[in-house]
Amino acid sequence: MHVELATHGDSGRGGRRAVLARALRDAVSSGRLPPGTRLPPYRSLAADLGMARNAVADAYAELVAEGWLTARQGSGTRVAERAAAPPAPDPPPSPAPRPAFDLRQGLPHTGSFPRTSWLAASRRALTSAPNDAFGPGDPRGRIELRRALARYLARARGVRTSPERIVVCSGVGGALRLLATVAQVRSAPVAVEAYGLPHHRRILTAAGLPTVPLPVDGRGADTAGLGASGAASVLLTPAHQFPTGVALHPDRRAAAVAWARSVGALVFEDDYDGEFRYDRQPVGAVQGLDPERVVYLGSASKSLSPALRLGWMALPAHLVDVVVAAKGEREQTVSALDQLTLADFIESGRYDRHLRGMRQRYRRRRDQLAAVLAEKAPHVEVTGIAAGLHAVLRLPPGTEGAVARAAAFQGLALEALTDFRHPAASGDTPGDGLVVGYAAPPDSAFTASLAALCQVLPAP
Amino acid sequence: MHVELATHGDSGRGGRRAVLARALRDAVSSGRLPPGTRLPPYRSLAADLGMARNAVADAYAELVAEGWLTARQGSGTRVAERAAAPPAPDPPPSPAPRPAFDLRQGLPHTGSFPRTSWLAASRRALTSAPNDAFGPGDPRGRIELRRALARYLARARGVRTSPERIVVCSGVGGALRLLATVAQVRSAPVAVEAYGLPHHRRILTAAGLPTVPLPVDGRGADTAGLGASGAASVLLTPAHQFPTGVALHPDRRAAAVAWARSVGALVFEDDYDGEFRYDRQPVGAVQGLDPERVVYLGSASKSLSPALRLGWMALPAHLVDVVVAAKGEREQTVSALDQLTLADFIESGRYDRHLRGMRQRYRRRRDQLAAVLAEKAPHVEVTGIAAGLHAVLRLPPGTEGAVARAAAFQGLALEALTDFRHPAASGDTPGDGLVVGYAAPPDSAFTASLAALCQVLPAP
Repeated sequence: MHVELATHGDSGRGGRRAVLARALRDAVSSGRLPPGTRLPPYRSLAADLGMARNAVADAYAELVAEGWLTARQGSGTRVAERAAAPPAPDPPPSPAPRPAFDLRQGLPHTGSFPRTSWLAASRRALTSAPNDAFGPGDPRGRIELRRALARYLARARGVRTSPERIVVCSGVGGALRLLATVAQVRSAPVAVEAYGLPHHRRILTAAGLPTVPLPVDGRGADTAGLGASGAASVLLTPAHQFPTGVALHPDRRAAAVAWARSVGALVFEDDYDGEFRYDRQPVGAVQGLDPERVVYLGSASKSLSPALRLGWMALPAHLVDVVVAAKGEREQTVSALDQLTLADFIESGRYDRHLRGMRQRYRRRRDQLAAVLAEKAPHVEVTGIAAGLHAVLRLPPGTEGAVARAAAFQGLALEALTDFRHPAASGDTPGDGLVVGYAAPPDSAFTASLAALCQVLPAP
Repeated sequence: MHVELATHGDSGRGGRRAVLARALRDAVSSGRLPPGTRLPPYRSLAADLGMARNAVADAYAELVAEGWLTARQGSGTRVAERAAAPPAPDPPPSPAPRPAFDLRQGLPHTGSFPRTSWLAASRRALTSAPNDAFGPGDPRGRIELRRALARYLARARGVRTSPERIVVCSGVGGALRLLATVAQVRSAPVAVEAYGLPHHRRILTAAGLPTVPLPVDGRGADTAGLGASGAASVLLTPAHQFPTGVALHPDRRAAAVAWARSVGALVFEDDYDGEFRYDRQPVGAVQGLDPERVVYLGSASKSLSPALRLGWMALPAHLVDVVVAAKGEREQTVSALDQLTLADFIESGRYDRHLRGMRQRYRRRRDQLAAVLAEKAPHVEVTGIAAGLHAVLRLPPGTEGAVARAAAFQGLALEALTDFRHPAASGDTPGDGLVVGYAAPPDSAFTASLAALCQVLPAP
């Protein structure tokens, strides 16, 4: 096996390990190392490359965790079968190339999924479920989960609701798809934050709903502009504006609710990472201010895993029947087994415990990010880090594109602030910036990811 | 001001702060603390409650951030003006009344869900899954499941495909929703069987696609009429026409494929209960005749449970990218954990074993149904029972409505043949009938359900 290590600029053990991992990944994904190929023992490869044994072992372990390699007792480390090129006669699918360093926002730390306690919850849930749990599903969702959520959301997020007002859905995106069918919502455009998830805007647009941007500043979305927006609803991220990272100012929370009351509009509150606040007490949900005007939207995508496709809405009373009717006579998408498992997971206290652990883990990563930047790039302002799983790094005007290209060239995946900008947004606030997610990398790659980030930041 | 702190179980500072915050929120939202009320300085409240000052200050700050309280220099902390009274409690929801006897089609026997072996598969799947299984999902579905399905479908249903051509989706309904977005399909109406699932027709109609009915007779859908239909695609149930229960005649299978080839059309093969055939060898999938013209659609809804919301398509090569693009960049609806579990369930042989057991169980029920009817209502013709989970009972012309009403009066849920008729269907074949599902009732209620059925059948 021949592996070329282009070690330019990567000094130190972490750097060379990362370079080796990248070279192995390329060799496997390109087919140069075919499935089943046995890799040399790490001792001999380390000797060949003049690297520390541990660094080679770490690189192997990383690729095993990612699924490129398999390590079986007695048969050594091999290229995984799943890394194979597709058999003829299919044209090869085009898998997105895996970045060497992944600092994209929106991804949780997949290595932290609580496999053991989830399985325990699953066992209890499946064992005790009534038979009807295996029949066609209630479109509102399983009552066990709606009960657990009503209690949890009241306790943890200050949401005022009841199991009868909760509707389970496929993530927050699934909630928006359903809300976009409501006549009241369809009567006018949806106001959205000028910076926000393009995915959510696309869902609304695909449903035939125009969106109008609300400016975002240091106090969050400027909800004072709602009256002039002509909108019948507004999508907000009050706990931690996405992506700029500020909490919606109390006056603006009040203004959004007052507007909704005065014109009979709706507020959609995307509480996308309300559970991950580090520096002060949690900011409760806006929904608590007026449960008849605010639809609370949440999901397990950040707190547990986006692979579950589990989300929920706490609805005003007058919308429950409308939204349930939009779902149809039976549940179409959400797995009842996952619903039952999550209900047990919450009620048994495992969910809180998991969140506490993740908060600590993410907080350490955030602190490490801040410390590295303070040392290596003290001229770069870091914002939005009181909560959530990402930071916003402010850049000098006009530099964002160059930095993003440099990152792509380095195999460093991250996003620019502009990627989240509404096409019709006016003004130049908040300006150039990078959106740096710090949750996704495996522990073994985090430090190297930060080093790669520092390399692409502009000089002072 | 009086604040009651129910501190049961909440020890420690964070706990008492949270309890105080909740108590304050309740007091404000219920109106016990009216807008404008000045709160005591946190020092004195802390002394009153025997709490740390910081904990009280934190609770105040939390409610200010949420908009319940306002803190203004010089005027202390007050209840915000806009914090309104809570909504009236919900009216109890009206659950659909559960029928005394349930002989509706389309429902499996929920008591037979293989809880223990599903859990075992789940344990193995979750334990061995790579970390990326807990990240955003590939819109094609997990490779583990697509591999398992490709092998299983080839072996059990004669489907010719590969993991790269399989796309996982939310049941057959989810597959139709995706296929309805394909430009080729949208270019013309979809031909459907004159008798079929209204739910599937509604999905196509809701997607803006008109449907045209193909007559159904004793050899299945009359595919010879496809040439004149003006359709660009046809939805068929070849293994067991739904609901009449006949297998599509070989000549008609060939005609459907020949039509698709000659005009570049597509056949959607809904193999909705291809696994449950009792009286002769299974009828293989039409897809095997031409994998480039036939889209095979299957699901776990009948074979395991509709609560899983797991379905799949085996696609012609030229449709794979189009359908994956329609799903979006990431999986939106299907649980990755259920996918991994089903993959293990299939690969470990548990799926085949479960199907064998269910085939025996359903066959016994079918035989019991036939025997009871032969004894109590020998004048009623029973058809469509070589496969599937339902029978069709032929009725004298004009009696269907009266029988259905009598059944409803008895608390017996079942459907009339006319319920499945396309609104534009012509002719009077197959005439009046009842569609009697025999899978759903619990064992203890099956005999009584059959007795209730006999009571509502017309006299000879």
